[in-house]
Amino acid sequence: MDGNHAPHSNQHQPSPERDGSFSYDIESMDGGGGGGLRGAASEALLRFDDDDSGGGPREPLLRKRTMNTTSQIAIVGANVFPIESLDYEIVENDLFKQDWRSRKKKQIFQYVVLKWALVLLIGLLTGLVGFFNNLAVENIAGFKLLITGELMLQNRYFVAFLAYGGCNLVLGATAAAICAYIAPAAAGSGIPEVKAYLNGVDAYSILAPSTLFVKIFGSILGVSAGFVLGKEGPMVHTGACIANLLGQGGSRKYHLTCNWLKYFKNDRDRRDLITCGAAAGVAAAFRAPVGGVLFALEEAASWWRSALLWRTFFTTAVVAVVLKALIEFCRSGKCGLFGQGGLIMFDLSSNIPTYGTQDVIAIIILGIIGGVFGGLFNFLLDRILRVYSIINERGAPLKILLTITISIITSACSYGLPWLAPCTPCPVGSMEECPTIGRSGNYKSFQCPPGHYNGLASLFFNTNDDAIRNLFSRGTANEFHMSSLFVFFTAIYCLGLLTYGIAVPSGLFIPVILAGATYGRIVGTLLGPMSDLDPGLFALLGAASFLGGTMRMTVSVCVILLELTNELHMLPLVMLVLLISKTIADCFNKGVYDQIVVMKGLPFMEAHAEPYMRQLVASDVVSGPLISFSGVEKVGNIVQALRITGHNGFPVVDEPPLSEAPELVGLVLRSHLLVLLNGKNFMKDKVKTSGSFVLRRFGAFDFAKAGSGKGMKVEDLDFTDEEMEMYVDLHPITNTSPYTVVETMSLAKAAVLFRSLGLRHLLVVPKTPGRHPIVGILTRHDLMPEHILGLFPNLRKSH
Amino acid sequence: MDGNHAPHSNQHQPSPERDGSFSYDIESMDGGGGGGLRGAASEALLRFDDDDSGGGPREPLLRKRTMNTTSQIAIVGANVFPIESLDYEIVENDLFKQDWRSRKKKQIFQYVVLKWALVLLIGLLTGLVGFFNNLAVENIAGFKLLITGELMLQNRYFVAFLAYGGCNLVLGATAAAICAYIAPAAAGSGIPEVKAYLNGVDAYSILAPSTLFVKIFGSILGVSAGFVLGKEGPMVHTGACIANLLGQGGSRKYHLTCNWLKYFKNDRDRRDLITCGAAAGVAAAFRAPVGGVLFALEEAASWWRSALLWRTFFTTAVVAVVLKALIEFCRSGKCGLFGQGGLIMFDLSSNIPTYGTQDVIAIIILGIIGGVFGGLFNFLLDRILRVYSIINERGAPLKILLTITISIITSACSYGLPWLAPCTPCPVGSMEECPTIGRSGNYKSFQCPPGHYNGLASLFFNTNDDAIRNLFSRGTANEFHMSSLFVFFTAIYCLGLLTYGIAVPSGLFIPVILAGATYGRIVGTLLGPMSDLDPGLFALLGAASFLGGTMRMTVSVCVILLELTNELHMLPLVMLVLLISKTIADCFNKGVYDQIVVMKGLPFMEAHAEPYMRQLVASDVVSGPLISFSGVEKVGNIVQALRITGHNGFPVVDEPPLSEAPELVGLVLRSHLLVLLNGKNFMKDKVKTSGSFVLRRFGAFDFAKAGSGKGMKVEDLDFTDEEMEMYVDLHPITNTSPYTVVETMSLAKAAVLFRSLGLRHLLVVPKTPGRHPIVGILTRHDLMPEHILGLFPNLRKSH
Repeated sequence: MDGNHAPHSNQHQPSPERDGSFSYDIESMDGGGGGGLRGAASEALLRFDDDDSGGGPREPLLRKRTMNTTSQIAIVGANVFPIESLDYEIVENDLFKQDWRSRKKKQIFQYVVLKWALVLLIGLLTGLVGFFNNLAVENIAGFKLLITGELMLQNRYFVAFLAYGGCNLVLGATAAAICAYIAPAAAGSGIPEVKAYLNGVDAYSILAPSTLFVKIFGSILGVSAGFVLGKEGPMVHTGACIANLLGQGGSRKYHLTCNWLKYFKNDRDRRDLITCGAAAGVAAAFRAPVGGVLFALEEAASWWRSALLWRTFFTTAVVAVVLKALIEFCRSGKCGLFGQGGLIMFDLSSNIPTYGTQDVIAIIILGIIGGVFGGLFNFLLDRILRVYSIINERGAPLKILLTITISIITSACSYGLPWLAPCTPCPVGSMEECPTIGRSGNYKSFQCPPGHYNGLASLFFNTNDDAIRNLFSRGTANEFHMSSLFVFFTAIYCLGLLTYGIAVPSGLFIPVILAGATYGRIVGTLLGPMSDLDPGLFALLGAASFLGGTMRMTVSVCVILLELTNELHMLPLVMLVLLISKTIADCFNKGVYDQIVVMKGLPFMEAHAEPYMRQLVASDVVSGPLISFSGVEKVGNIVQALRITGHNGFPVVDEPPLSEAPELVGLVLRSHLLVLLNGKNFMKDKVKTSGSFVLRRFGAFDFAKAGSGKGMKVEDLDFTDEEMEMYVDLHPITNTSPYTVVETMSLAKAAVLFRSLGLRHLLVVPKTPGRHPIVGILTRHDLMPEHILGLFPNLRKSH
Repeated sequence: MDGNHAPHSNQHQPSPERDGSFSYDIESMDGGGGGGLRGAASEALLRFDDDDSGGGPREPLLRKRTMNTTSQIAIVGANVFPIESLDYEIVENDLFKQDWRSRKKKQIFQYVVLKWALVLLIGLLTGLVGFFNNLAVENIAGFKLLITGELMLQNRYFVAFLAYGGCNLVLGATAAAICAYIAPAAAGSGIPEVKAYLNGVDAYSILAPSTLFVKIFGSILGVSAGFVLGKEGPMVHTGACIANLLGQGGSRKYHLTCNWLKYFKNDRDRRDLITCGAAAGVAAAFRAPVGGVLFALEEAASWWRSALLWRTFFTTAVVAVVLKALIEFCRSGKCGLFGQGGLIMFDLSSNIPTYGTQDVIAIIILGIIGGVFGGLFNFLLDRILRVYSIINERGAPLKILLTITISIITSACSYGLPWLAPCTPCPVGSMEECPTIGRSGNYKSFQCPPGHYNGLASLFFNTNDDAIRNLFSRGTANEFHMSSLFVFFTAIYCLGLLTYGIAVPSGLFIPVILAGATYGRIVGTLLGPMSDLDPGLFALLGAASFLGGTMRMTVSVCVILLELTNELHMLPLVMLVLLISKTIADCFNKGVYDQIVVMKGLPFMEAHAEPYMRQLVASDVVSGPLISFSGVEKVGNIVQALRITGHNGFPVVDEPPLSEAPELVGLVLRSHLLVLLNGKNFMKDKVKTSGSFVLRRFGAFDFAKAGSGKGMKVEDLDFTDEEMEMYVDLHPITNTSPYTVVETMSLAKAAVLFRSLGLRHLLVVPKTPGRHPIVGILTRHDLMPEHILGLFPNLRKSH
């Protein structure tokens, strides 16, 4: 590998910052990948065991006991998860071209129709699951509240608490048990994982059928158990799982496969379907079709096309139709305790809200509060997750124990704290029933005498959806005492933080909306008659401000809230409050989902390059030396390379006598090599063939990507010694058009290229002639800030 | 330039389709660009005079009298417009790096604050212009209708016609005159031009201040003149013009510049601002903030980022606030004849529409009708524009004459056709006034006796906005006779086609909505009592179907219509109808805006590569031989090259003694060369300098891009003979990190790279060592289907 790294040409002027570290090149080169990674390891970047390709043969680095023990991966209790990069590049090899030429119009038509059918199916299923989720939660939680209420009516308060707390405990423990034993990946929100997947990072089993199962039932149990968590994040994950399952043609493990769906066995089509699934999840959770599309666009997806917009919208519309039809069906009372279904609260009050200067000032204050509380929430959540991870890492029983602890605390709060609140006489002339005992209602009786209600119980002793509806309700200005609201806010803020890390599918939307709506209502009540706006609308604005402060989403949050409340006239105010809270919170830290992505060690690539990358060139970070194959390679060499490395791409270089001078043919993928080797059409001599037998024997679909974790492995292959000495022609399966950059290319621009095109491998070619035709391969890992700053610690100052 | 084009290496297997045309390489190479273009010229692609860079010295090709005479550019009556490519690549040269290092936090803060301020300002101004437009139109048109109505009341029917037709004629002729003489580029919708701009094509003066002026006033006059055209397209163009004007820091021509805005003197920031402007335009036209964002996303923009979503949304929210405040102000009656303002029609009827199977079938039929009529509309529009172009090309007077002719036809239709309709007795118990004489109202008196109204006059003898409102109105099932609706549909369909090509700012939304709503109402009336849906809702669905059939937008149309009518419950039906009509119409032809983009000869790049490009490699289409500079080049050579070519980028190659072997340094831009030459710091000898004097004398902002058409020209520079013999060091201003592809790269993948990164120049480097280090430069032109199919006509078969 001599000569691979020539001295920098004089056009590339070393910047002052770099002068001090001129020895790194040699070091990282000599070390052969492992050396180059020394800095990265100390930066505790999770090494992806099966990705990368540029480095020399090396053992997969074991995960060090450093910062990463605090990762969510640890929290969900698994061992080292393999993280795989996705590949959106079209492999243009001879096989692909032959296939393209022979592809008939009928096949293209099939593909288009199937894609639409899949999108329709994703919408249908996600809508059904969303409805089922609501139905189950409202029935289970309603039944629980009904029993407790009845017992309280009989003044058997302690028995009521035991019944209430017992129900919560059993439900919560069951949720934690299925999560810990069946699919640890289903814990948490799921939005960070989906976001990372759509960025090109596939964490193990994150979209597997078992995860889907646990996500659905764990979420139902968790929400029913009265935890301060939501079903919204899990619904997004559920939608993505459904899309993945449909896209990969069912599950091979459970013998549910469909050959028709071979067209979608590639990362590009899967990405599109999963984007649709994520949008469908939001649409099902909030019944907000436009909000779902915008969520997918703003938060989830990393790549976007105009065609995708239409497909996503179609999916969410299907969800809306399904939900509407099912709720219409339930209106006849056939669905048990099922009410209006979830969060929806069309307040068909036709009076248009008006507002004055004092309201705008109050809203600016709300925005500031939201920003500060949001930043603080993210900071505290980060710390708490780190503590939890230590507990969760010790195995499933401890996970369940943690969940039980949180469940008891939650039950104690939601049953105990309402006793602090005074009984208030029912308002005269209210349209709503007062007081109520059952599962819902704005005025809960709790311990109060007839004709009185307990304001705090209306918030605590309820499903989260109903509590939000009560906070948002208009025309109920004096329903809640100030003190009740303060108590509720403090409790929810703390419980929200404590609950997220437990081993239960748990969304963050609901706790955040609850806490935000509460302080919004506090501000509204404080302003009182000075304001033209109803406290219910202030609650809406408060929820918006806290969402902006934690999640840092803007357009989608805005549209979701407006679709939820049907208050289009509030648009400018909601935008103002979001703008302020997001801007303020951005001064402190990153959005909560981005923070969790980092904590999980998922190598997420931002759309823009970091500024310090402009001071480096591509060859600065590439880890060498390379393993490259000849165009016609000995089987033994290939098998050996596949066994000792985890690389997924290998450059193919023709050397004399195959060509006049060493010449880069292209890039060959590990998965394609395995399929080719499995065919066992080897040759005795090292001569170039026409490749026709490969083209005859294989179709492009034979090289299609299997579902994650289901591909062929090199250990599955077995060769005789004779076969190992034979040759195989790699030309037909080599991608002859890999994307390349010259070694002196600015790293920032190489990173933009890598990210814009969704690459997995980017070949670095030498600038000066007469050298080996390839310098190295850039992968996602090489472009991670942790890796780069590990190699060049002095860039950190200027960072 | 020998050896530039080696025989294809054996990895690149020629496909059967290509075998027949193996002589093209040599041909196109020998011909030196001109030869390579032979095919393209016959394909009548407009040659961009000042773009491109790869080819040899050649005269700009004059536009041929072929298909292009039918272009809209011809229609708007200009001579050859220079079309310039935009460049979104970050030029990473030494100057940039120095500047980046010295850039202070304060500057970055300034940049961010200024960008937000600009976005706010765009929203404010677009909102104001949108309101002013509505105000002026409603007052002028209202006054016109009032006079005519009064005259008709006195039974002076012929005088009434003269007054009506005369007003229309004067208004129309004035609009055509200012358009033809001041800014021909302001004719038409403007959406295709904005779309092309955001794709990276800057047509001359398309966003100039004069265009803005004519667009605003021409649109007001045109709409007031009663033409069948809308203000929506022009509003998009207006928003983009405002954004451009603000972004380039005012107009230097009119001495309105602001030095603060130097940060935005680059194509990337301008693109962002113009996207916001386009969204603001839609928001102002339809008062649909979310619809505006989605329009910008779906139809206008070619590149999209998450940050942009938030900025666009902020702009449209500002527009919404401004409009709301102004309309609130007008409610007190201070705005003359101004009514509720534009199209908005919040039908606060709280009864949720229900629908059965027969309705769904009717809606499917509507979708089919919309698809067929939409495809036919686009086809006919294409033909009519070709005929008009012959007329419009002959100069301004003929343009005005054409406009006058159309004005007379329109007046005759809208005044004459209502006489065909019978007088209908006013409905009993209607909440609306019946009959009315003035400018608006659902029941127009026209020639009818008291207590009767003329249904056809309610549609024809009205502003277009009011006609749409009447068609959409609910609870007026039998207002219009079947025959009236048929007559109206036929007239509007034909007038819409005839009107678009005239030299007046004219949007297509209104004619399309009018025609669609009419046949929707026909279907609704036909179904009558069989249906649960109101004919007004069928009109909405009809409008959606025709919009889907012509414009092929989906999500944005859907959201705009729903925001307009506040009928969120109609979402699934609107989506269904759009899906069907778009799918059917796509079988016939392209969307109307895409069609106009092609017709105008604007080199629009699609996001996906054409399938036949997979059979070609990058070097197949590159036009050579090159003009390249040495790293230290003689001034005379540079001036010569700049004078004889129109190229905008030149490769810089260091040759011995500057380097050991010929080596590519990078790419230097024409505009940067001009600034450097203007500095006149030349050297006596050909030696490499440290470049420090350049770095001392210039800052990166000196090389910032001027507003379109305002940059320095080579003709402006003057050199003595002595200076021409001196040398200048190009290294400091050379972009050392240009994007490159290897010559054997699949053309499809090169095109995707080019498009994804928004490049202007893509360098093609040789695959085999020992050759000149650069094969050629790919530009937008080289990737146009017309060019490629001109070079390889036999690919057309498989196309």
